Amino acid sequence: MYNYPIKRAPYKAQKISVSNRGMQFEELINESNEQYLNRNIAVIYKKPTPVQIVTVDYPQRSKAKITEAYYKIPSTTDYNGIYRGYYIDFDAKQCNSTTSFPMSNIYQHQIDHLERIDQHGGIGFILVEFNRLNEIYLLEIKDLLEFNKRDKSGGRKSISIEEFREKSILIKESFPIRVPYLDAVDILIDKKKNENNK
Amino acid sequence: MYNYPIKRAPYKAQKISVSNRGMQFEELINESNEQYLNRNIAVIYKKPTPVQIVTVDYPQRSKAKITEAYYKIPSTTDYNGIYRGYYIDFDAKQCNSTTSFPMSNIYQHQIDHLERIDQHGGIGFILVEFNRLNEIYLLEIKDLLEFNKRDKSGGRKSISIEEFREKSILIKESFPIRVPYLDAVDILIDKKKNENNK
Repeated sequence: MYNYPIKRAPYKAQKISVSNRGMQFEELINESNEQYLNRNIAVIYKKPTPVQIVTVDYPQRSKAKITEAYYKIPSTTDYNGIYRGYYIDFDAKQCNSTTSFPMSNIYQHQIDHLERIDQHGGIGFILVEFNRLNEIYLLEIKDLLEFNKRDKSGGRKSISIEEFREKSILIKESFPIRVPYLDAVDILIDKKKNENNK
Repeated sequence: MYNYPIKRAPYKAQKISVSNRGMQFEELINESNEQYLNRNIAVIYKKPTPVQIVTVDYPQRSKAKITEAYYKIPSTTDYNGIYRGYYIDFDAKQCNSTTSFPMSNIYQHQIDHLERIDQHGGIGFILVEFNRLNEIYLLEIKDLLEFNKRDKSGGRKSISIEEFREKSILIKESFPIRVPYLDAVDILIDKKKNENNK
């Protein structure tokens, strides 16, 4: 588990505030997307953080300065783009627990959004990093919907690490593409093609 | 030209600052996207405006207040999403001229981005509203690239209204979907399918 060929600061040594939680994982994904873009493999970007702008000053004629603004809840997911002609849409979540991923980490409207993407022929999923285990999983929307149903019908409010190991696709950190999640997307695309051929 | 079944304030009567230019057209498109979403026709969103956040205060424990931030140039285009299984990507531009659309209204990196989308099998274009003519056009990336080449090689630095009328697809404002641009995208998809069948 500790033999990855890349150097990375151990998470334990750092204090991560609620607002920064997931930041480091996001950076790994952003870097991977840059690599995918530069190699002409895929065009996938993180959407800008939505901000509600209240007041704007113009101290210089050329430059607007925002002096009052607030973070907004995103309407959709953080990442989307195109790969092998497919519309790709996902969210990235960092999980500090070693045993389970709480369903409260993902908004219902994000699940609804990913479900819509799936219905329209796109590929929707979440990437979850269990940072203390150094394990990253891709969980496709179809399975996420099952876990969401279980949660909403009074069942377990989280997805256990065992369930991730069983249901989702493990992504091995690598180099130079740090989080090569499109290898896992290839598996989803193959599955989709097989289903369409049935 | 003035017989559209919808009421809309005449543009001439309003002062439009540079930063607000295009705002009204954007709102029409956002509204149309909402309609497309509610009718389960397509899932297309405007990306949030990218903002460089410099200072954040925490006056209350619960709410972060951004007190210094600046607008950033978007890395990509404003809109993307999925329609009929296709990845859709475009920018919306409002044009105050009645005779031509200046190439300086669109960034080179946005053109490069749309070109990449096309290469990866997506559908890339710009929507241009000539607001004083009450005409809206969809110009696909392949044609935009030709005009860009002309500009970069020392030719005309704008696209004339005649060229729009000849090369691009006219979108008629309508109701309840105000800018029914997906009708024009249908034409692009048909063309793409015919090209693939050749």
